[in-house]
Amino acid sequence: MMTRNTTQLALAAVAGAAAMAVAAPAMAQDATEAVAAALPVAPETSFIFNSFSFLVHGFLVMWMAAGFAMLEGGLVRSKNTTMQMTKNIALYSISGLMYWVVGYNLMYNGVDGGYFGIPGPWSASDPITDGAFTGDASGYAAASDWFFQMVFVATAASIVSGTLAERIKLWPFLIFIVCLTGFIYPIQGAWQWGGGWLAEAGFSDFAGSTLVHSVGGWAALAGAILLGARAGKFGPDGKVHPMPGANLPLATLGTFILWLGWFGFNGGSQLALGSAADAIAIATIYMNTNLAAAAGVVIALIVTQAIYGKVDLTMALNGALGGLVSITAEPLTPSPMMAVMIGGIGGVLVVMAVPLLDKLKVDDVVGAIPVHLVCGIWGTLAVPLTNDGTNFGSQILGIVSIGIFVFAVSMVIWFILKMTMGIRVSEEEEAIGLDKAELGMEAYPEFGRGSQSI
Amino acid sequence: MMTRNTTQLALAAVAGAAAMAVAAPAMAQDATEAVAAALPVAPETSFIFNSFSFLVHGFLVMWMAAGFAMLEGGLVRSKNTTMQMTKNIALYSISGLMYWVVGYNLMYNGVDGGYFGIPGPWSASDPITDGAFTGDASGYAAASDWFFQMVFVATAASIVSGTLAERIKLWPFLIFIVCLTGFIYPIQGAWQWGGGWLAEAGFSDFAGSTLVHSVGGWAALAGAILLGARAGKFGPDGKVHPMPGANLPLATLGTFILWLGWFGFNGGSQLALGSAADAIAIATIYMNTNLAAAAGVVIALIVTQAIYGKVDLTMALNGALGGLVSITAEPLTPSPMMAVMIGGIGGVLVVMAVPLLDKLKVDDVVGAIPVHLVCGIWGTLAVPLTNDGTNFGSQILGIVSIGIFVFAVSMVIWFILKMTMGIRVSEEEEAIGLDKAELGMEAYPEFGRGSQSI
Amino acid sequence: MMTRNTTQLALAAVAGAAAMAVAAPAMAQDATEAVAAALPVAPETSFIFNSFSFLVHGFLVMWMAAGFAMLEGGLVRSKNTTMQMTKNIALYSISGLMYWVVGYNLMYNGVDGGYFGIPGPWSASDPITDGAFTGDASGYAAASDWFFQMVFVATAASIVSGTLAERIKLWPFLIFIVCLTGFIYPIQGAWQWGGGWLAEAGFSDFAGSTLVHSVGGWAALAGAILLGARAGKFGPDGKVHPMPGANLPLATLGTFILWLGWFGFNGGSQLALGSAADAIAIATIYMNTNLAAAAGVVIALIVTQAIYGKVDLTMALNGALGGLVSITAEPLTPSPMMAVMIGGIGGVLVVMAVPLLDKLKVDDVVGAIPVHLVCGIWGTLAVPLTNDGTNFGSQILGIVSIGIFVFAVSMVIWFILKMTMGIRVSEEEEAIGLDKAELGMEAYPEFGRGSQSI
Repeated sequence: MMTRNTTQLALAAVAGAAAMAVAAPAMAQDATEAVAAALPVAPETSFIFNSFSFLVHGFLVMWMAAGFAMLEGGLVRSKNTTMQMTKNIALYSISGLMYWVVGYNLMYNGVDGGYFGIPGPWSASDPITDGAFTGDASGYAAASDWFFQMVFVATAASIVSGTLAERIKLWPFLIFIVCLTGFIYPIQGAWQWGGGWLAEAGFSDFAGSTLVHSVGGWAALAGAILLGARAGKFGPDGKVHPMPGANLPLATLGTFILWLGWFGFNGGSQLALGSAADAIAIATIYMNTNLAAAAGVVIALIVTQAIYGKVDLTMALNGALGGLVSITAEPLTPSPMMAVMIGGIGGVLVVMAVPLLDKLKVDDVVGAIPVHLVCGIWGTLAVPLTNDGTNFGSQILGIVSIGIFVFAVSMVIWFILKMTMGIRVSEEEEAIGLDKAELGMEAYPEFGRGSQSI
Repeated sequence: MMTRNTTQLALAAVAGAAAMAVAAPAMAQDATEAVAAALPVAPETSFIFNSFSFLVHGFLVMWMAAGFAMLEGGLVRSKNTTMQMTKNIALYSISGLMYWVVGYNLMYNGVDGGYFGIPGPWSASDPITDGAFTGDASGYAAASDWFFQMVFVATAASIVSGTLAERIKLWPFLIFIVCLTGFIYPIQGAWQWGGGWLAEAGFSDFAGSTLVHSVGGWAALAGAILLGARAGKFGPDGKVHPMPGANLPLATLGTFILWLGWFGFNGGSQLALGSAADAIAIATIYMNTNLAAAAGVVIALIVTQAIYGKVDLTMALNGALGGLVSITAEPLTPSPMMAVMIGGIGGVLVVMAVPLLDKLKVDDVVGAIPVHLVCGIWGTLAVPLTNDGTNFGSQILGIVSIGIFVFAVSMVIWFILKMTMGIRVSEEEEAIGLDKAELGMEAYPEFGRGSQSI
Repeated sequence: MMTRNTTQLALAAVAGAAAMAVAAPAMAQDATEAVAAALPVAPETSFIFNSFSFLVHGFLVMWMAAGFAMLEGGLVRSKNTTMQMTKNIALYSISGLMYWVVGYNLMYNGVDGGYFGIPGPWSASDPITDGAFTGDASGYAAASDWFFQMVFVATAASIVSGTLAERIKLWPFLIFIVCLTGFIYPIQGAWQWGGGWLAEAGFSDFAGSTLVHSVGGWAALAGAILLGARAGKFGPDGKVHPMPGANLPLATLGTFILWLGWFGFNGGSQLALGSAADAIAIATIYMNTNLAAAAGVVIALIVTQAIYGKVDLTMALNGALGGLVSITAEPLTPSPMMAVMIGGIGGVLVVMAVPLLDKLKVDDVVGAIPVHLVCGIWGTLAVPLTNDGTNFGSQILGIVSIGIFVFAVSMVIWFILKMTMGIRVSEEEEAIGLDKAELGMEAYPEFGRGSQSI
């Protein structure tokens, strides 16, 4: 690291040279422009860019919490909407607290790293001495990294709430979120992004198709299995009873929010903006992310039209999300054409996986498992198609090891919760709706049939 | 362009001077501060700023796609809301794909420019060699420009979907969007922003009052004429039957989203952030953009109160948008006072144009033609009022030539679609609502009268 | 300030040194890297960062206007929703115009500062001469500061509209907003942020717990007292009749928008991004802001569960906002643990203050007074707990003096309005709902009981 003295010396050097230039103006003119053109990015400038990238991209990912809330709020029935809102704002809050209490250090510094996130303003890890910058071009504000990583854990938690909607009790759900965001997510995160054994084994997951999305999907799947399907969802005759969402514009809004937030999710995962190469990488990521999502939508439209004879809006929305999850493991190395392919296949997988889950009698209210788990696996597997530094073996190792860990631990926690507090509301409460039964507050008290319906 | 060798040489120069400074410390002290204060922005730093401006302002414009969806979703009746959501997410996706397949190159590189957008990561046009920056201060990441231009074409497409809502068939609409975003928009865009004949003729349209908003408006007008009005909109007695939107908070949300996105639309159109002059320009644009929109709202409130004896929310929302479209052709050169005037006149035009369209029996469901076409023309005409480098003749040339081209080609395409697939649903389907008839999925299945109503 | 000549001289100096370096390559190599590492941020680069921070954080705060609209639109009954939308888009527009006409200069330049905001593009206060930068590292584009300050005044105005919903007439409300944003807010703002007597007295309010949030709260309280409660809110038996909001997902969306916007509100209030120290400060502020809000939510969940036996979503939402307001007076100096404490106490205060207001028979439709006034006072009082440069005496002085000024002046204006135009709709209009009675336009014309209800 540079000390302040070095900086002064360097500047003095420049200044000292000024005297010469005055004496030799003839040669100075042309050289002036050449030197100005060749100035590198000052390390402190890189530091600001890196930090600001974490903050701007971080607030976009924070915004995804609203996206999940609106998507899920639009896809549940009106009698369970207040509960879905409550769960989503609660889980975002819990994520932020747990990732501060223990998660962040568990993930990046090991269990010896301490608790309570970073030490606070002007953290010891921030390269500032007496107000002067003493770091280098690869640095960033400690709190900006904390903020960016924190909003990621909230994303994983949001996935779970969608799958388990309309029948899970509030408090057991929140306790699971405490475990997921404080421990499960950070432990597997440490394996890869914390520089652990998976990273050493050559696994590659740029922005978290596996580390974030599959993790949420596995935790949701474990819960869905133990929780069981909503009453009436799967008829005794094997028929699947559709339970349409109460507010599709809200679900569409949620999808647009998630799409927007994903530029932060993938773009910010470059983890730097301090050089032209970083800027080019992030721009490429934005482009590929958008292409993959667009392909997911268009493919979902075409496939639902072909199979069902009509377009399905909720499939189109999930097609966008499937495309986004698919490109998340490697948004940088694919050509635009490959990004379209990867996202488009994600769209197909979503449309195919939804009826498959129904056949397995797994009741996933918003389709989160097809989107986040299935496409998360696909996206992770697709990395070696475009990234030469990776291989299928390592990718499978990562998918499987994280999958087993998260699914098994989640299953244990859900099971303990089920045995102790119980995780499911009573049949009567489910019929009335969680809003009235558990919260005593309707989401849309004035709108028509309201919670008496369906 | 600088080579890496030049950079090293330049730095070596600075370093070499250090030895001197040590020998002449007396004069170095004062000079140090002077030199530090005079350091220019490094070209690579400018490159990062330029690229990041495209990305940040681009994601704001992408967000406008959600704004249009919510605005239109709130202003249609509930029986057509799922369809409106479907069209809007589909058109944003198609825009992104078509502008990659052919549009971008058609607009900026001519028909010989190739297909499939830019070549991919580390595009040949990106100034990086072995990870080192070799460009200059006016550069930007190729993909960041692609991203920013792509979200513009989606804006033009969104305008069309609003006007034609509640009676157009899904697939013919999407085919038109393919033509609009892949060919119509890029061809006229090439005339001006691609450096073509209109640019040479002195036409000026900073962020696209004509190139984006009028284009959407003309395409919508052509469609509205061929498609005809909704059943019952214009009574046989010449009376206009109001068909109120089902969800005004949603429409209000959409307007706020568009207002927010417009800072990206106009601000990003400075196309650079790499110098203090650019930063000042963008800040001025933000200020003027906000003032014009605010004036549009206040004028619409006052005028509707004066004419109708009560304030009209949908007019206030369209007043905001009218003010925004009006300032888009020139958001930089107006004084704040002129920005207020330009936006305020936009607000008046919107309030006046809505009944005028009704008289012409053109059924524009959301008022997109008054907002985007009428105010787009006004904004383009107003440029010479504040920008000395422009003149009314060139402005009229641009408005008329783009208008004729877009309107005529759109008319031909709509006509072919009408003759082949048909563009309008049956009377019975229209009465039932597109959601049930075409998609089999209601937007608000639980809310009261739902799609049986009105 | 540097002149263009100085810049050229400095560059010439560097260039002149190049010749030497060529002659002494042996020593140049190592020194090259040292010098590159020690380059400071160029002043023009700082200027761009500072300006861009105002713009990015400013658009986040602008987005809060949508957040307030959605929050309030979700918490009023459906028969008053169109009116609430109208008021909120109108007040944002009026804020922007009044702060331009007179407010900005009144706040920062005194009454002699002139009118109509800053003089326009390339304002005399912008350090550009012939396109070249002539400023220093602490500068920013004049219009970027105007934009950032303007969106703050809109926040204060938004607070008022929530409290007074469902019974106030439109035009008297808008006239009050003209007074608030053009005069009341700027005058008290001048005392502190304008460098006036409160600033000299040692008062400290980083981002406006008092200057923005309490101001809105006091103005709302004055109005609520003169306006009286909604018919039927407080029964003759002393019972409080709940009037549940019509659309809780909308209120939840509004809260998420506000949370997102608050990163701009607090982060942008660092007023600079031109150094590593600034970047670290802003990152710390983001972290603390999020922790305080999260703590407010979790505490509100726990407290409502403990007191009422069930979780209350609207309290959780207001808990988030209470946490945010509480950390706003000092988001930088608290440790993360202190941020959690400050925000958590905010959550408690909100839950406690809502029934207290009911006891005082002050009808605050959305709970804005508990959130913005009570937590605004708490946050301002908490500053000396973590900021050594402050003391309780000065904090109380600021709270009380601003409180008296804003409350008294607001009371006078509300009283004059009441005596002249009247501020309250008739009993019959209130029963019908403002949407039909004043605007003739329903927010949800198709949804069930609609405005006939409740």
